[in-house]
Amino acid sequence: MPAHPSQADALVLARKVASAMEKQDAAVRHMGIRIEDVAPGLARVRMELKPEMLNSHGTGHGGFIFALADTAFAYSCNAGNEANVAAGCSIEYLVPAACGDVLTAVAKERHRSGRTGIYDVTVSNQRNEIIAVFRGKSHRIKGTSVPEGSF
Amino acid sequence: MPAHPSQADALVLARKVASAMEKQDAAVRHMGIRIEDVAPGLARVRMELKPEMLNSHGTGHGGFIFALADTAFAYSCNAGNEANVAAGCSIEYLVPAACGDVLTAVAKERHRSGRTGIYDVTVSNQRNEIIAVFRGKSHRIKGTSVPEGSF
Amino acid sequence: MPAHPSQADALVLARKVASAMEKQDAAVRHMGIRIEDVAPGLARVRMELKPEMLNSHGTGHGGFIFALADTAFAYSCNAGNEANVAAGCSIEYLVPAACGDVLTAVAKERHRSGRTGIYDVTVSNQRNEIIAVFRGKSHRIKGTSVPEGSF
Amino acid sequence: MPAHPSQADALVLARKVASAMEKQDAAVRHMGIRIEDVAPGLARVRMELKPEMLNSHGTGHGGFIFALADTAFAYSCNAGNEANVAAGCSIEYLVPAACGDVLTAVAKERHRSGRTGIYDVTVSNQRNEIIAVFRGKSHRIKGTSVPEGSF
Repeated sequence: MPAHPSQADALVLARKVASAMEKQDAAVRHMGIRIEDVAPGLARVRMELKPEMLNSHGTGHGGFIFALADTAFAYSCNAGNEANVAAGCSIEYLVPAACGDVLTAVAKERHRSGRTGIYDVTVSNQRNEIIAVFRGKSHRIKGTSVPEGSF
Repeated sequence: MPAHPSQADALVLARKVASAMEKQDAAVRHMGIRIEDVAPGLARVRMELKPEMLNSHGTGHGGFIFALADTAFAYSCNAGNEANVAAGCSIEYLVPAACGDVLTAVAKERHRSGRTGIYDVTVSNQRNEIIAVFRGKSHRIKGTSVPEGSF
Repeated sequence: MPAHPSQADALVLARKVASAMEKQDAAVRHMGIRIEDVAPGLARVRMELKPEMLNSHGTGHGGFIFALADTAFAYSCNAGNEANVAAGCSIEYLVPAACGDVLTAVAKERHRSGRTGIYDVTVSNQRNEIIAVFRGKSHRIKGTSVPEGSF
Repeated sequence: MPAHPSQADALVLARKVASAMEKQDAAVRHMGIRIEDVAPGLARVRMELKPEMLNSHGTGHGGFIFALADTAFAYSCNAGNEANVAAGCSIEYLVPAACGDVLTAVAKERHRSGRTGIYDVTVSNQRNEIIAVFRGKSHRIKGTSVPEGSF
């Protein structure tokens, strides 16, 4: 593989990484999160808000909305096959979510330099209302998701 | 009940509220979170990190650590029997969590004025290492968790 | 003025508001911040990093970089002539700034509903490197910057 | 100096570091910030809100309140004579500040591990009202504030 892979190669790699991550991602399976699309610095994931995801006010528990956004963040910041973990995250809740809502989180890389990256995630419902915005800061660690010579 | 309830009354109320919240809290049951103690402006909750809570790196998924902290936040900011929801939250991850770790989140009210409150949450593991710090901002809405004349 | 002003009207109003704000904005004058452009939900401001804005490491003091970003945030969230104040802000520093750097902060509205708005600000230097990202949450209060019938 | 300095030594060192930092800190002088006390992991700083620190609403400009909090953060996270810079900060504004208010920011270390530290800062006015809370994340870099053998 050349030092500067083509955009097409980078997209193929991003999807291989996502596929490898998903196989080992117990949390994603458990919450029924579907990894819809992953590209370099981008990810779109989806989840239906189920009854066990409601809080005592009967609306979507912030923890699950966060987990969905965090998943989009994780798949976008790992798309280059360099392992990255979350250093910190913030979320602002804008509109409550209801049982049965289908939530989509889209993560985009805003900045990357050295071992640090900044990713912005928007969480929307099935009416395209933005219900939360999330910002994640990633930290690169050693390791890859798929063996380096495998693609 | 007098306008300025005694500390003892406030503690009784906080525990009634927590008990009422817990009965309706599907997310807490689903994650196996135990509400250990609630007092005015304070809450301590506990969760064991189970295999389905791991991410693709094999460590605790940030979403579940967040959810535990968020739960401590929710029970502490609702302890006065005025309904409060999260307006925004931030979390900083300090140390990874491993499968089987028993995590404790302790929330403390830092400030309350008007309809806004600030709560700090510390998440520790069974070795008393702080693994994450969380800050939540609450927004008071209409409603109570237990009927106002019931205590 | 019609209930739904044209885009042209909104742009004229945004600039009138910015001009009125700037006249009363002692902090902006004091720091030498230039309000370069304001449009509905958008603002671009500029500042040269002067010797008195350095910290003890000899690089740009985070407080002044924050103040520049915060100014872009303030002018963008007030552009509709409804008074808004900051409820909370976060900043991530990515690259240090040096004495003499000319910094540009661009604020964009991400979301607005009810009395709350979310604004993202990017701070760049004269080499177009992003040196910091900022997110502000606004809260609408009573009042306007220019009299309501004056345009 | 022994590997584990006594608390008294650590306090002497913290004050030497603060004194060395202050001499080079143009921003602190420019804003009239007084470094009142520094100890290991702690700092208290004070500033009067002057007319040039007001925004267009006539209240304290968020940038200067941030700068005061950020200064307390900087002096507390550098007190051990290892150079630290801010990686990111967040602030929540709770009560507006008025011209002439005397603001005190107190920073406390919440956590330190590896190269990362978390510091909480509370900003109060002369009536002991908390007007803002701030959280800073520090990142250790190479270097010291005072020569290592000088104390």
